[in-house]
Amino acid sequence: MNEAQIVTFITDFGSRDYYMGMIKGAILTQHRNTNFVDITHDIKSFDIVQASFILKNVYNSFPAGTIHIVSVNNYYSSKRKFIAFKHNEQYFIGPDNGIFSLIFGKKMPPTYQLEENQETAFSIKDVYAKAIQHIATGQDFETIGAPLEKVVQRITLQPVINRFQIMGSVIHIDQYQNCITNINRELFEKVRDDRRFALFFKRFNPIIRLSKNYYDVSVGETLCLFNSAGQLEIAVSMGKASSLLNLNIDDTIQVDFM
Amino acid sequence: MNEAQIVTFITDFGSRDYYMGMIKGAILTQHRNTNFVDITHDIKSFDIVQASFILKNVYNSFPAGTIHIVSVNNYYSSKRKFIAFKHNEQYFIGPDNGIFSLIFGKKMPPTYQLEENQETAFSIKDVYAKAIQHIATGQDFETIGAPLEKVVQRITLQPVINRFQIMGSVIHIDQYQNCITNINRELFEKVRDDRRFALFFKRFNPIIRLSKNYYDVSVGETLCLFNSAGQLEIAVSMGKASSLLNLNIDDTIQVDFM
Amino acid sequence: MNEAQIVTFITDFGSRDYYMGMIKGAILTQHRNTNFVDITHDIKSFDIVQASFILKNVYNSFPAGTIHIVSVNNYYSSKRKFIAFKHNEQYFIGPDNGIFSLIFGKKMPPTYQLEENQETAFSIKDVYAKAIQHIATGQDFETIGAPLEKVVQRITLQPVINRFQIMGSVIHIDQYQNCITNINRELFEKVRDDRRFALFFKRFNPIIRLSKNYYDVSVGETLCLFNSAGQLEIAVSMGKASSLLNLNIDDTIQVDFM
Repeated sequence: MNEAQIVTFITDFGSRDYYMGMIKGAILTQHRNTNFVDITHDIKSFDIVQASFILKNVYNSFPAGTIHIVSVNNYYSSKRKFIAFKHNEQYFIGPDNGIFSLIFGKKMPPTYQLEENQETAFSIKDVYAKAIQHIATGQDFETIGAPLEKVVQRITLQPVINRFQIMGSVIHIDQYQNCITNINRELFEKVRDDRRFALFFKRFNPIIRLSKNYYDVSVGETLCLFNSAGQLEIAVSMGKASSLLNLNIDDTIQVDFM
Repeated sequence: MNEAQIVTFITDFGSRDYYMGMIKGAILTQHRNTNFVDITHDIKSFDIVQASFILKNVYNSFPAGTIHIVSVNNYYSSKRKFIAFKHNEQYFIGPDNGIFSLIFGKKMPPTYQLEENQETAFSIKDVYAKAIQHIATGQDFETIGAPLEKVVQRITLQPVINRFQIMGSVIHIDQYQNCITNINRELFEKVRDDRRFALFFKRFNPIIRLSKNYYDVSVGETLCLFNSAGQLEIAVSMGKASSLLNLNIDDTIQVDFM
Repeated sequence: MNEAQIVTFITDFGSRDYYMGMIKGAILTQHRNTNFVDITHDIKSFDIVQASFILKNVYNSFPAGTIHIVSVNNYYSSKRKFIAFKHNEQYFIGPDNGIFSLIFGKKMPPTYQLEENQETAFSIKDVYAKAIQHIATGQDFETIGAPLEKVVQRITLQPVINRFQIMGSVIHIDQYQNCITNINRELFEKVRDDRRFALFFKRFNPIIRLSKNYYDVSVGETLCLFNSAGQLEIAVSMGKASSLLNLNIDDTIQVDFM
């Protein structure tokens, strides 16, 4: 028996429109035995930073052979391209708008440009369907499209550091209103160098202790911890940090070491 | 190996309730090997026009043998009926409230009335499950229910035309706030007859050029194009047309030809 | 051919985050042939009463062998546990925070505590994935974890009754704004004892007739009926009862018998 091809989606199509329906229909027409996993269709329109953040956290959990479709800001240019590449036995398909460079940086694996007939109505559905069929039927991956020399590179705001300080920012507010920053554990520990720290944000008293779990402090108290993705997160135990602390995406946070 | 039966859903059940869960459970109990595709559950309550618009755009993309369930405004009458019919090797199931006539008009294929035991709790789940099991197991389609002489017909607002003008209206705002009208390419080209045109809406300067892609104009500029469904659409390049132009469902648009 | 393992989800993870993606990926990695059914991810954060209400209405519709994951308020305590049990050939997995006691009360079936390695990032994904793999591969259910003597018990507000009256409350507002109460048919009929009744709520005239269907009264009129789950519900025919009547969760309703 053939296993179903797993295909995940990260898009900004929302839940009210017919675009995802058309895409799924086209894929099932090309390759019937497909198992769709909708990661999210609620990426903010055009927000490739948020899309890459979700993809980065998710793709590793999936089994080898999974295809990840990231479809955000497809119409970024009149010379738009769709690309496919393979990393750690997983496949990635999406527009060449820099979204994947936010995860893989300069280390992008060999990348192929998918053919698109822009004369067709809503042609991206056929681009995706054909590429999935190619992979799912075990064809030679290198023949999925023409090799692409150079993919679009994008960079995101990185934390600014010196010997005594990290200046970072909030990059994601999750469903529970936890505030996730762009400071990861590796950077934090390296600059910290076993010293004490004080995490400042807005005009609140600094957080001076690293928690392991949300329930390490009393209900309603503010804490910080490294989340499952290894990013520094500011949270309120059993509460909604973003509203309570008025802490939003792009707000600055500062960690002093002493 | 038997292929999974593909079943799509277009409903107004939303995402917070247990109704869809009951329906999917009942279907899986009747026919275990089913692959659900949720097109949308966010149709406005009772809005069969919006539901038919989504279905019309989507069904053609799916492979032969797909079953499309449209479940909107089920409780339209004490004499409600559920119906099933087949068109282009695809199956359609839903209430007989005119929803399908908005797509197929007077050309409805032979239609069958599904049996319903209204004494059962939430009986529609059993109606759907039984009909799907009938189709999925390859039984004679004509025995799915009693032939129905006449289905409920509904009509929607059509554009008004004369030799110099089309008066239409906005029928859908999509996720990107593009404004989709009830004027299709065929009608437009027929009345246009190779003349120049000016598309008026609200108090804005008219659009006098037809674009092929969103990026044909500068960022922030207004444009019109025929979308993937062949409908005339008013959009703003990289922007949210509905908010920016204050253009909403049912608003009138006027195309003059000269 | 092996049937796909059906796994349903009732969670408060929402639709914007990567948590569900990680969980589904982990499950597919452990057991590839899985068919996910998302009942809802829109439970209010920490609201185990709402989650149990949805589960209670849904689980019976699913075929034998289904696994129901209820993942709400997982981080309820530093001594949190995850549990699994079997009821009517269906499997239930979730945190030991009382959520299942709201359905099964003191009659909880034998329950097992799942092993968790809290040192792993987002460890619940592995807890769920391992338990599902155990069940899906037909292993002896009793070896899924250590037997648990006592599960957390929670109680909800029950209606108050005397010979002439039931005092209940609204426990759920559905997608159509129907108001569902905590009074079920059995209790109602027992206290009623074939007498007439008057259902009071807010300052409106009482409802004195039990309807069978929404269309038993004129459009816009208020009615009450027992819904598909056997709960007394206040609705407005073709209208939104909660807004129109200003009737919300936890509001009191009173039934007098005479």
